Amino acid sequence: MAARTPGAGGGTTLAEIARQAGVSVSTVSKVLHDRSDVASRTRAKVQRLLEQHGYLARHRPAANALAAGGLIDFVINELASPWAGELIRGAEEALHAVGMGMVVSAAHGSGPSARQWLDSLATRRTRGAILVVPELSGAELRELRRLGLPFALIAPIDEPPPGVPWVGATNWPGALAATRHLVRLGHRRIAVISGPPDRLVSRARVDGYRSALEEAGLPFDPALVRYGDFTPEPALQHALDLLRLPDRPTAVFAGNDQQALSTYRAAASLGLRVPDDLSVVGFDDLPFAAWVTPRLTTIRTPLADMSALAAHLVLQLLDGDHPPTTRLEVASELIPRESTAPPPA
Amino acid sequence: MAARTPGAGGGTTLAEIARQAGVSVSTVSKVLHDRSDVASRTRAKVQRLLEQHGYLARHRPAANALAAGGLIDFVINELASPWAGELIRGAEEALHAVGMGMVVSAAHGSGPSARQWLDSLATRRTRGAILVVPELSGAELRELRRLGLPFALIAPIDEPPPGVPWVGATNWPGALAATRHLVRLGHRRIAVISGPPDRLVSRARVDGYRSALEEAGLPFDPALVRYGDFTPEPALQHALDLLRLPDRPTAVFAGNDQQALSTYRAAASLGLRVPDDLSVVGFDDLPFAAWVTPRLTTIRTPLADMSALAAHLVLQLLDGDHPPTTRLEVASELIPRESTAPPPA
Repeated sequence: MAARTPGAGGGTTLAEIARQAGVSVSTVSKVLHDRSDVASRTRAKVQRLLEQHGYLARHRPAANALAAGGLIDFVINELASPWAGELIRGAEEALHAVGMGMVVSAAHGSGPSARQWLDSLATRRTRGAILVVPELSGAELRELRRLGLPFALIAPIDEPPPGVPWVGATNWPGALAATRHLVRLGHRRIAVISGPPDRLVSRARVDGYRSALEEAGLPFDPALVRYGDFTPEPALQHALDLLRLPDRPTAVFAGNDQQALSTYRAAASLGLRVPDDLSVVGFDDLPFAAWVTPRLTTIRTPLADMSALAAHLVLQLLDGDHPPTTRLEVASELIPRESTAPPPA
Repeated sequence: MAARTPGAGGGTTLAEIARQAGVSVSTVSKVLHDRSDVASRTRAKVQRLLEQHGYLARHRPAANALAAGGLIDFVINELASPWAGELIRGAEEALHAVGMGMVVSAAHGSGPSARQWLDSLATRRTRGAILVVPELSGAELRELRRLGLPFALIAPIDEPPPGVPWVGATNWPGALAATRHLVRLGHRRIAVISGPPDRLVSRARVDGYRSALEEAGLPFDPALVRYGDFTPEPALQHALDLLRLPDRPTAVFAGNDQQALSTYRAAASLGLRVPDDLSVVGFDDLPFAAWVTPRLTTIRTPLADMSALAAHLVLQLLDGDHPPTTRLEVASELIPRESTAPPPA
């Protein structure tokens, strides 16, 4: 298959190359930078694809031009979040591959203090910015444009205004895959614990869940749909409420892996076993998902790939390229483990 | 109580002020920088202590002198580790408080590629470096000194050579506290799963464990001491071996929280309940420790405080200060939760 947008390059191409080679975007970055820690077979395959897509000819010189110790800012609203490490890792690797450094800052709250990271960008001689902030105000957007700095958003909570480059996870397809998995195991009463109802990410997941039910001819029961806030405590209460229903669900699709652990907890406190009495699916695939008992079936969000793509978007914009698209969604993937099984007879 | 080293300042003083005020080092940093997100009572208490210790007079001007957009490098050997986020957060907050930015890099392996971060430090105009690398080779140390960059190590696996500033966690006291907690609950057969035997951190923990047994007049049984590598899989096998002993332990002190989850898993696979049949203590207090079922009793390692102190050490060295000590250990703390209980009757 040829590149969708030959000659245009872009994050899509890089993601497409990674997909075709069956490797991560980070691995593609490594090959681009002649790093030694890539198996030679993989390297050959990726190099062939890079050539086919015309990527090398377009991007190498630019990458070299940037390499003289340039810096990109990475601003994240919550460094304490369990996602921070992976997001930093992906962007750092992609920038390192072209010889650039990355300045990491926490946004340190919103409101007046949100100005601080913008002030820092203006003061430092950075070349661009990767922003993991829930949303950009109109004033922030104007200021970024005034500074003339290329930037990209990662996982904004809502669709940003036109012209704002961003990379997100595929929430709707992820929720579809999670719910289909449960339907195929034979579940008929499936609950969902999502995020706040006013956020697109939450609505996309509930809609993906609903579509999977519809295609299986299963009814959509509003009593089985709960909106949390993506933190563990409210999820615990939602899970307890769901599991105390007279006609309780046999499966719960949780909004993230922490909420899935809260569902484990609710089940244990009511004497229900996972997965014998209750199946649970998470979202994200944080490292602990593979260590807990039972190991958590979850939807993997490729956080490091998302931030690597955001870094590439910024580099392309910095090069004066016009990427064919500046709104990317990175595919989520079902990772089946031990927390899902057919419903009790 | 007066500061131990009046007039000398230093990370010790800052940690001491935090201890006396009953707050984190990060909170002390916030007060130093007049940040708004500190309760006024706390702010007043911290300011009083800072004045008593003579910290403000010594450090404010220096901090201001540094503030003009200066950068510090933060190099970490493994950005994918579950500790990375917290370590980055603490250092970033401390540097942000004095108006400095932080460049985050992964060390990207050892051997020849380990040179890369040193090369980057030399190329970039950074003012100092915070290093989370297991150890420094003699060549790396010489190169750092040649560059004249102030630096500090965080949690090195062994005692660094004299003159190398570092911040570590208190492994021996942490292990003592964990084992004492189990002894006080009535356990007599307590196992320990530590890290590699050739690392000081592992040996300090086994020694702390042994001391707690000795002070309780309990025998030290080498069969109950296992050396893992701080990753979950070997810990699972060690836990299974321990729990299959004819005279199996009633409690396991694990080397970290992931190893504690492996112990949960081993227990479940043998039909043993935590904590009814087996008590488990972890080490680190990663966020998931509070979410798993049962919630994990663990030794909290204040990662963010450790890296904040390392940042302060670097800033002091950059100021030309001679901190009274450049080897700091940050106190660990027992966090009792649900995974420990008296042994089965």
